[in-house]
Amino acid sequence: MTLKTLGAKKAAELDQELMSEDGGFSIDQLMELAGLSVAQAVYKVHPPPTNSQSKPKILIAAGPGNNGGDGLVAARHLHHFGYTPVVYYPKPTNQPIFTGLQKQLHKLSIPFLTTPESFTSELQSADLVVDALFGFSFKPPVRAPFDSVLADIIQAKKPVLAVDIPSSWDVEGGPPGEGLVGHEFMPEFLISLTAAKPSVRWFKGERHFIGGRFLSKAIADKYGLDVPDYRGVDQIAEVEVGVKVEKL
Amino acid sequence: MTLKTLGAKKAAELDQELMSEDGGFSIDQLMELAGLSVAQAVYKVHPPPTNSQSKPKILIAAGPGNNGGDGLVAARHLHHFGYTPVVYYPKPTNQPIFTGLQKQLHKLSIPFLTTPESFTSELQSADLVVDALFGFSFKPPVRAPFDSVLADIIQAKKPVLAVDIPSSWDVEGGPPGEGLVGHEFMPEFLISLTAAKPSVRWFKGERHFIGGRFLSKAIADKYGLDVPDYRGVDQIAEVEVGVKVEKL
Repeated sequence: MTLKTLGAKKAAELDQELMSEDGGFSIDQLMELAGLSVAQAVYKVHPPPTNSQSKPKILIAAGPGNNGGDGLVAARHLHHFGYTPVVYYPKPTNQPIFTGLQKQLHKLSIPFLTTPESFTSELQSADLVVDALFGFSFKPPVRAPFDSVLADIIQAKKPVLAVDIPSSWDVEGGPPGEGLVGHEFMPEFLISLTAAKPSVRWFKGERHFIGGRFLSKAIADKYGLDVPDYRGVDQIAEVEVGVKVEKL
Repeated sequence: MTLKTLGAKKAAELDQELMSEDGGFSIDQLMELAGLSVAQAVYKVHPPPTNSQSKPKILIAAGPGNNGGDGLVAARHLHHFGYTPVVYYPKPTNQPIFTGLQKQLHKLSIPFLTTPESFTSELQSADLVVDALFGFSFKPPVRAPFDSVLADIIQAKKPVLAVDIPSSWDVEGGPPGEGLVGHEFMPEFLISLTAAKPSVRWFKGERHFIGGRFLSKAIADKYGLDVPDYRGVDQIAEVEVGVKVEKL
């Protein structure tokens, strides 16, 4: 079995096709399903204890783009799933979907950290970190303030679920070179959105999921992808770590 | 235990509050989660056979408003869950979300029935019917062409999942009087969206679900509702049929 992956250009094309006049999707719909799949992956790797008042603390580090938006949606679902999400969103984006998602989280009394110090401090008590800083359109290097956010995450040695791509990794080339922030970054868990990206060949974590259950057979065929083997009503499908990777 | 229900005015207020400047939700987000919960309810009452190429046929009768939109979203998810959805949407609404949802379904090659005759005929081979004709804002009587759509559904004696309220029922008063279409309508299954409505006291079907997992404790408290007992990552919670109903 080989894992078929989408490069940055093709991944952007696919997103554009879904949201075209012809495709009919809105960003709200796609981000909702992507964020829901992120929350389901958290549930899979770290379910909340049953019959307990203890709610695992999930720290969501959200970047300025759509990857960050997926993280904000995930934070809402995690709240409803019985977690204590805490959000760090140092560069909020002033577009309706992002401001709307923030308001939803405020209404749920989900805390937003406001300083780098509070983020560093909250990391110590987090049960899991969601790395929703950058996705497939990331271009190196990691700029401030995200360089220190990422350095903090790496140093804290907490379990991390990376959204789409481990932040700082190049979509094709994988981890950055020695001496650069992210060179040593290896999250335990990865959730690829819509399809895995070529850099997954460098992923040596424990578990890898694919999410975003809206890919049709027709579009998958057009891009040479396989529709992931989703089960039941799951919004995520698990794929083996370390299989041969094919770039399309 | 009593089941707390929302009248039409309060239900509309709650929706408005979620979608207000302050609440931050878009209709796309709420309808996506509502429609997903409808699809999950179908899965719960009629799961597709495992390891089989046979895909149950689900006939979705969609009305002109948001209830119909929930049905269109459900059709997309049902396709991905392994069903053969077939849609009857005789009065399509020309607003971006509704035209977008239709395009998404066309891209999945989900058939849209175009005549009353084809609907009557497809009913015979359907495994289950989703009644997404009217929701809590319905005002009687049932007008053409939905009167004959509903009469057909009742006559076909197929299992029906009603979305929010059995169509033709008054949100407060329940089934219409003798001689009116819908008087004898008793769907096997009901999924209430966000909260049950007072007419649920007339529901004598087999199973009742609540869906729309976005209700916060704060808003539930404000409206005197209980947050349903959702489990795991489920988007639906089952409630007992025949419990005492309290109107708020």
